[in-house]
Amino acid sequence: MPRPKNDSFLRALLRQPVEQTPVWLMRQAGRYLPEYNETRRRAGNFLNLCKTPSLACEVTMQPLARFPLDAAILFSDILTVPDAMGLGLYFAEGEGPRFERPLREEWAIRDLRAPDPTVHLRYVLDAVAEIRRALANSVPLIGFSGSPFTLACYMVEGRGSEDFRTIKTMLYDRPDLLHRILDVTATAVTDYLNAQIEAGAQAVMIFDTWGGALAHRAYREFSLAYMQRVVAGLRREQDGERVPSIVFTKGGGQWIEDIAGIGCDAVGLDWTASLAEARRRTGDRVALQGNLDPMILFAGADTVAAEARRVVEDFHAGGPGGGHVFNLGHGINQHTPPENVAVLVDSVHAHSRSLAGRGI
Amino acid sequence: MPRPKNDSFLRALLRQPVEQTPVWLMRQAGRYLPEYNETRRRAGNFLNLCKTPSLACEVTMQPLARFPLDAAILFSDILTVPDAMGLGLYFAEGEGPRFERPLREEWAIRDLRAPDPTVHLRYVLDAVAEIRRALANSVPLIGFSGSPFTLACYMVEGRGSEDFRTIKTMLYDRPDLLHRILDVTATAVTDYLNAQIEAGAQAVMIFDTWGGALAHRAYREFSLAYMQRVVAGLRREQDGERVPSIVFTKGGGQWIEDIAGIGCDAVGLDWTASLAEARRRTGDRVALQGNLDPMILFAGADTVAAEARRVVEDFHAGGPGGGHVFNLGHGINQHTPPENVAVLVDSVHAHSRSLAGRGI
Repeated sequence: MPRPKNDSFLRALLRQPVEQTPVWLMRQAGRYLPEYNETRRRAGNFLNLCKTPSLACEVTMQPLARFPLDAAILFSDILTVPDAMGLGLYFAEGEGPRFERPLREEWAIRDLRAPDPTVHLRYVLDAVAEIRRALANSVPLIGFSGSPFTLACYMVEGRGSEDFRTIKTMLYDRPDLLHRILDVTATAVTDYLNAQIEAGAQAVMIFDTWGGALAHRAYREFSLAYMQRVVAGLRREQDGERVPSIVFTKGGGQWIEDIAGIGCDAVGLDWTASLAEARRRTGDRVALQGNLDPMILFAGADTVAAEARRVVEDFHAGGPGGGHVFNLGHGINQHTPPENVAVLVDSVHAHSRSLAGRGI
Repeated sequence: MPRPKNDSFLRALLRQPVEQTPVWLMRQAGRYLPEYNETRRRAGNFLNLCKTPSLACEVTMQPLARFPLDAAILFSDILTVPDAMGLGLYFAEGEGPRFERPLREEWAIRDLRAPDPTVHLRYVLDAVAEIRRALANSVPLIGFSGSPFTLACYMVEGRGSEDFRTIKTMLYDRPDLLHRILDVTATAVTDYLNAQIEAGAQAVMIFDTWGGALAHRAYREFSLAYMQRVVAGLRREQDGERVPSIVFTKGGGQWIEDIAGIGCDAVGLDWTASLAEARRRTGDRVALQGNLDPMILFAGADTVAAEARRVVEDFHAGGPGGGHVFNLGHGINQHTPPENVAVLVDSVHAHSRSLAGRGI
């Protein structure tokens, strides 16, 4: 497998020089695109869309047809892993994901097993292979998983939560049970990401959506430690090419020194952190991914362009070198005007080229 | 007015020595107490409870009758200020606060005026005076307000929001309009807090519940700068006694150096920050208030006691001196078992006394 023709995303993750800052957007294949909604209607529902490789491939490719993005990301859902563990994922209309059998009983926790991804998540691996064929080495494909703690939140709460009362009560009262869940889930995530890499994913990202809800000490013990184990277990190369990893804890800006130390190649940041400051704090040991507030995409085109340039300049203010992948600080909102995404991508590319040209 | 018999809260805020760490809890008068729910039933609804000084006094005193807390906090709601500005506060059953007339039109923003608190918020000042009489100099009374930005969130969105899309669109597209709202609101907050101080509040706290949703640069310009203006305009003394101020940005752990620099006496922290680390970062220029995760109160009594001790030790790990007021990192949850609050308060007092005795 040759490297993709546009490999700026992979080079930035490895802190190698690039001509312009690469851009992709979390949830870039999604409801803000009319063509996505059309495919989803054809799929019947969201789970069918995730579980049908040809449709998952179709929506993965849609944003790339519209915008000059520098990476594709597998279209899937983080909850496919607990679903493969037998928890029974379903989507209540307009209410988000739920599990039929949340993990609450000690016997169920003792019985929990990591699934074989080549069997129970075959549809994801088939989608990865199909997307790679469709990409035809144009840009790299990103595989992903939820972090063990974030998956455990849904597994224990049984749905999204505002205060994480059930899992935090378990964390403080029965840490042994939560460690058991995280232990199995970390194995499941490692196996799942490695299977994606073997199927063709050229970089992987771990989404720790809920680690930022933890107290500082609990974050290290119950989220970061398990992401470290996952990263340590990842295949570092496939077909002779390095496979970089990105770790993103939403709301984890206070802890980036620690996150940068777990062996990942890049750290994702939300919009509360300054990239220049993050470079100083991590000593450029890792690349950084981020970090525009997705709400900026509701402003006028001039403002979108100006704020995109500010993010690029914020990174450059941290000095020469480093590695920057431009992204939002969270998934793109479903009501975002697509024309502003075009402005965003072009502004990042053009402004980073002009800064590079000025030797900044 | 003499100082209260138990003035450890005030001394800790001014970084003076205390025999034991003072404790109070955000929302300590609230729905987790059966006697609160009984008074609220008598009031008919939440707004009546806020607007009837004798009832506001009654619920303010309730937690002090149960637990040896070191401060009382005025029972009120942060949205009384925009209500006094004419926005029409109401509570939709089970859905939280709303405004009848959210601030969206340019003419309405130009017409916005800071209310005279001695007229339009008289009921709050009457409650403050009544609570001071009821306290009879036992412990100090804390007055409070929402931060200008947090109030503006509700004023512009018209209700709570998950993504702050309306106010952030205004922030990026029409910063002049948002600055106008914040300018008027900062004056209103300053006048309101000063009126509370004149009525008898012995310390004041600014709750910046939503500043943490902002991008780092926007936080400084649209939240912190206005809190700085409020703090600069506060009465520093009343009846010959210093009136300390506390600023709390939920989710603002990355910015505590900046928050510590706006002239306040203390900075509130949520549970994502380590107190030892916060002391190092702020150089003990301010006292710190916090920071137990309120969800810990759902664990067993032994765990509550152990985690309370950990917070006390975390502060002590920052070295001798400093000032610490123990609190939760957010308001107490309505389902909290009251017996765990008793364990919490006693554990903090006992453990901090024992550390002081060991010269730690």
